[in-house]
Amino acid sequence: MLGNFKYENPTALYFGNKAMDYLHRELPKYGKNVVLIYGGGSIKKNGIYNRVMEILKENDKNVVEDAGVMPNPTLDKVLEGREIARNHKADLLLAVGGGSVIDYAKAISVSVHTEGDPWEKFFAGREKPSENIVPVGCVLTMVGTGSEMNSNSVITNTAQKRKVGRNFGEQVCPRFAVLNPEYTYTLPQYQMVAGIFDIMSHILEQYFSGEDDNTSDYLSEGLLRSLIHASRIAVKNPTDYESRSNIMWAATWALNSLIGKGKSQDWMVHMLGQSVGAFTDATHGMTLAAVSLPYYRHIMSAGLAKFKRYAENVWDVDGTGKSDEEIASEGLQRMEAYMKEIGVVLHAAELGMTEDMVEGIAEGVSILKGGYKELTRQEVIDILKQSM
Amino acid sequence: MLGNFKYENPTALYFGNKAMDYLHRELPKYGKNVVLIYGGGSIKKNGIYNRVMEILKENDKNVVEDAGVMPNPTLDKVLEGREIARNHKADLLLAVGGGSVIDYAKAISVSVHTEGDPWEKFFAGREKPSENIVPVGCVLTMVGTGSEMNSNSVITNTAQKRKVGRNFGEQVCPRFAVLNPEYTYTLPQYQMVAGIFDIMSHILEQYFSGEDDNTSDYLSEGLLRSLIHASRIAVKNPTDYESRSNIMWAATWALNSLIGKGKSQDWMVHMLGQSVGAFTDATHGMTLAAVSLPYYRHIMSAGLAKFKRYAENVWDVDGTGKSDEEIASEGLQRMEAYMKEIGVVLHAAELGMTEDMVEGIAEGVSILKGGYKELTRQEVIDILKQSM
Repeated sequence: MLGNFKYENPTALYFGNKAMDYLHRELPKYGKNVVLIYGGGSIKKNGIYNRVMEILKENDKNVVEDAGVMPNPTLDKVLEGREIARNHKADLLLAVGGGSVIDYAKAISVSVHTEGDPWEKFFAGREKPSENIVPVGCVLTMVGTGSEMNSNSVITNTAQKRKVGRNFGEQVCPRFAVLNPEYTYTLPQYQMVAGIFDIMSHILEQYFSGEDDNTSDYLSEGLLRSLIHASRIAVKNPTDYESRSNIMWAATWALNSLIGKGKSQDWMVHMLGQSVGAFTDATHGMTLAAVSLPYYRHIMSAGLAKFKRYAENVWDVDGTGKSDEEIASEGLQRMEAYMKEIGVVLHAAELGMTEDMVEGIAEGVSILKGGYKELTRQEVIDILKQSM
Repeated sequence: MLGNFKYENPTALYFGNKAMDYLHRELPKYGKNVVLIYGGGSIKKNGIYNRVMEILKENDKNVVEDAGVMPNPTLDKVLEGREIARNHKADLLLAVGGGSVIDYAKAISVSVHTEGDPWEKFFAGREKPSENIVPVGCVLTMVGTGSEMNSNSVITNTAQKRKVGRNFGEQVCPRFAVLNPEYTYTLPQYQMVAGIFDIMSHILEQYFSGEDDNTSDYLSEGLLRSLIHASRIAVKNPTDYESRSNIMWAATWALNSLIGKGKSQDWMVHMLGQSVGAFTDATHGMTLAAVSLPYYRHIMSAGLAKFKRYAENVWDVDGTGKSDEEIASEGLQRMEAYMKEIGVVLHAAELGMTEDMVEGIAEGVSILKGGYKELTRQEVIDILKQSM
């Protein structure tokens, strides 16, 4: 814990198969006008839409809908949503869905009372939002991004083929979040697995940095072990409540800032994966999976002690009689075997990435300095080619 | 994560050797009248008192002092402190010290605007406090109780020889907490070690319960590993910033409710230790140390799977060719060796406990039902005798 930091997280989380009941406790805290935000309409098939509308009605809310939020929410959609929220004089943005829907709601939250182009201001321009935001609440139906308890928002500018994430600060965290593991049962296996790898990547990208001996890294190892254990059960039996609930809870704590406190962080896998996503519109977690092993094998020698620790503490590699490099490599081999076991995509070609995209994708990758090795543009290209 | 639960924690934590600077950010949020609460005056020797007073003055606060809070704060002292806060029309209670001082501030916080005896209402009576409380902020100078980020308060009724803890709910959590690991350097070794064992006990008393496979238990294992590692360094070199900072951070997360979410909990070591404390006025963490091994050895067979897991995941016991019971026992042996290494008290006799106290102490022990085995009063007596 060598750095100075602030930790504060205002989100009230309601967890469990009765969690939705607590919407009744939260809704009265806000004004009458609610924008109900959701995605492609799966919540209409599984009954969640009806349940939420019923509770909103019982709480006498004046509701308009903002539906059709896409998996990689676009700037164009944000501009539309801003108009809906403005016209409705929104007191609360209630996001029902996964990370995309909540990320989108946050982008609207900071944009409603702001003139000008939200992309230029907040995503390209990285301005700090004013205090005058519209609060966000959420009902989570897909697990992975941790958006339910953080202030992050990732938006895609399709015209510029750029996908950019921002951390807006505590005031933009959802004020409340309803986490019912059963709501994730109906998600297709592909999406579930992508979410699981997204969680794993969030943890690893905070873990693989720093030489110090940080409590955060021990917490990360605990979360990783829980996630690996639970996900192996969930991919075989997606309606196993215990494993789905552990995955859901691990996801929240993987990216609500706790495990990154007091240490440097890497985040290059997200930079690489997001750029692949901007060119292919592929599922976020799968883009991370495709680039992870090439990236980690590339930087392993620069952070050897941590990769060795990862092998031993997370993958139970027995180091007896082996060199540090052998131990570290064996950890990544076990990670690869695990990735195959749960069924993530290991080759970006399967996500629609083609050779002719490599240069464009590489240009779209922000090169960060927090990890064990600062990449050159050529190294980015090499890693992307190996990810094919 | 089989249970339904709510997680919400409003405390803003400022961590690091520059943390005190952020008092300037927090103080303007409150009215002019501040009660500065502290203990025996060690903060006057190490400069913390002067620094806090300087910042209070720069923020134009009207300050009265409530000093002399004892290690086990008493009801009588709470009644005095309530008068001070009432007469001063306190807008903020600023606690500067360790868990005792913060616990005491919380007891005043809920009592100021309440008629009647706080003991009868809140501690014996377990009433829920009203919304009308005086907010608490804190500067932490001793690590262990986690009081800086929870709503717990433990108060001793000397007339009744009873020491009772309450969890008042989120509104009574400190609004802000300043955590500078350097402020803990001047603490005597005995107090530091007692604090370390208090932290360990908080984790273990949430960990040793439940049969399910809970993310909380994995987080607990991470915290334990970090704590064990850091404390071994700190007892040899108390001014090692890194280890002291890791201990401080582990302490906060050991008892801010996170690692107990979605699972049953034990807490009998605290029930036993607190009753020893009410009779001997011994240092809290040492009373826990004295009763822990007799208690855990007594219940081990009832929770064998978890004690085996503890041995393997926390103490790296190699289970090859051993029975579950042998593995579990070896874990507790390693724990005993560790306790000797860091220098905690292993016998309650050293804390002033005598044979003739046993019956009274046993009567003062609340028998809880969350652990692997519900004790009889006779078992309580047996464990206390073994703790001598």
